[in-house]
Amino acid sequence: MPGRRSDAEARDTRAAIVRRAADLASAEGLEGLTIGQLAGELEMSKAGVIGHFGSKEELQLATLDFAAEIFRERIWAPAEHLPEGLPRLLAICDGWVRYADQPSFPGGCFIAAASFEFDGREGRVHDAVAALTARWRRVLEREIAKAVEAGDLPETTDPAQAAWGLEALAAGMNPARQLHGDDPAGWSLRAMRSVLGLPAEVAAPA
Amino acid sequence: MPGRRSDAEARDTRAAIVRRAADLASAEGLEGLTIGQLAGELEMSKAGVIGHFGSKEELQLATLDFAAEIFRERIWAPAEHLPEGLPRLLAICDGWVRYADQPSFPGGCFIAAASFEFDGREGRVHDAVAALTARWRRVLEREIAKAVEAGDLPETTDPAQAAWGLEALAAGMNPARQLHGDDPAGWSLRAMRSVLGLPAEVAAPA
Repeated sequence: MPGRRSDAEARDTRAAIVRRAADLASAEGLEGLTIGQLAGELEMSKAGVIGHFGSKEELQLATLDFAAEIFRERIWAPAEHLPEGLPRLLAICDGWVRYADQPSFPGGCFIAAASFEFDGREGRVHDAVAALTARWRRVLEREIAKAVEAGDLPETTDPAQAAWGLEALAAGMNPARQLHGDDPAGWSLRAMRSVLGLPAEVAAPA
Repeated sequence: MPGRRSDAEARDTRAAIVRRAADLASAEGLEGLTIGQLAGELEMSKAGVIGHFGSKEELQLATLDFAAEIFRERIWAPAEHLPEGLPRLLAICDGWVRYADQPSFPGGCFIAAASFEFDGREGRVHDAVAALTARWRRVLEREIAKAVEAGDLPETTDPAQAAWGLEALAAGMNPARQLHGDDPAGWSLRAMRSVLGLPAEVAAPA
């Protein structure tokens, strides 16, 4: 079945392009991606690269989707089977900090970089970054609200404010590591606990 | 004295280029700056633009210096005459949050954007961003240490950790405003107080 084999090959090639695009864009930015550079590194023609996507913008969106899937696998997947509320939230914080400490991409956390790259722009990539990070915030806000309901976080907690604080403190690990050579994982976890209104040392969930 | 007049004109032109470059780069990134776009917007030739700097990299460095001066004027200048330690630190936090809330550039805080743009790169602009933000961290760390000495912050405070936390929480206002339409000034100030170990509501300094 030659058609099927060729479909599978096309999917493999597309996945290899996206994987390489994510590596490059993590350091150089999604806007800094060039089809020429990708084609050169993958030993393909420019037309061969762009043919899988149709436009640079579609390639950027596919790269963002790929990075979102890695983020989900590394941060949400290990936490989702834990009890909702504080146990799950603290596992998310741990995973997030571990991810920012040892990112899957050479230029650091892709989503953080894309947020700062596209926040001041307009267009479909800006909108996609906003939609992706809004979904993640809703996950955080839900767990924070459940932890408040359970009496595990102060009842004055504002879930939206706390979720934003976690996001800012995870993102801020990237320039700390890459500009200053800091080892900010402990800093970030302690600061996350501060903005959640938890004591610096938290006992492991029962 | 035609030579002097022409020097002054050259300085004015150079300043106008840098000002426009900072506006553009705040949204599009310092790497996204193009001499062609600047020349078009300023109704100059490309050679006329680049002649003031010698290279795109020198223009990027000059633009960063300009943004650093605006940052200093808006955040450090209003605080530097206050008593050192907590009063000065809280004034810095107020100014920083106000700056991130109403930035001087259309794309938000330039230094935050440049930190996330260049942290994964190498070269002179990366080094300049690192040096600039390292100087600012030393200012923060000094005020935090003075506040601890005065008994105004917990004696367990780690100045480097707390300074990083303030930086992350200021930077995080940019995507909140520009991706999500949040109004994060209050969130940021409260979170800054949390990472400093201060109660949510702090009495005005005596």
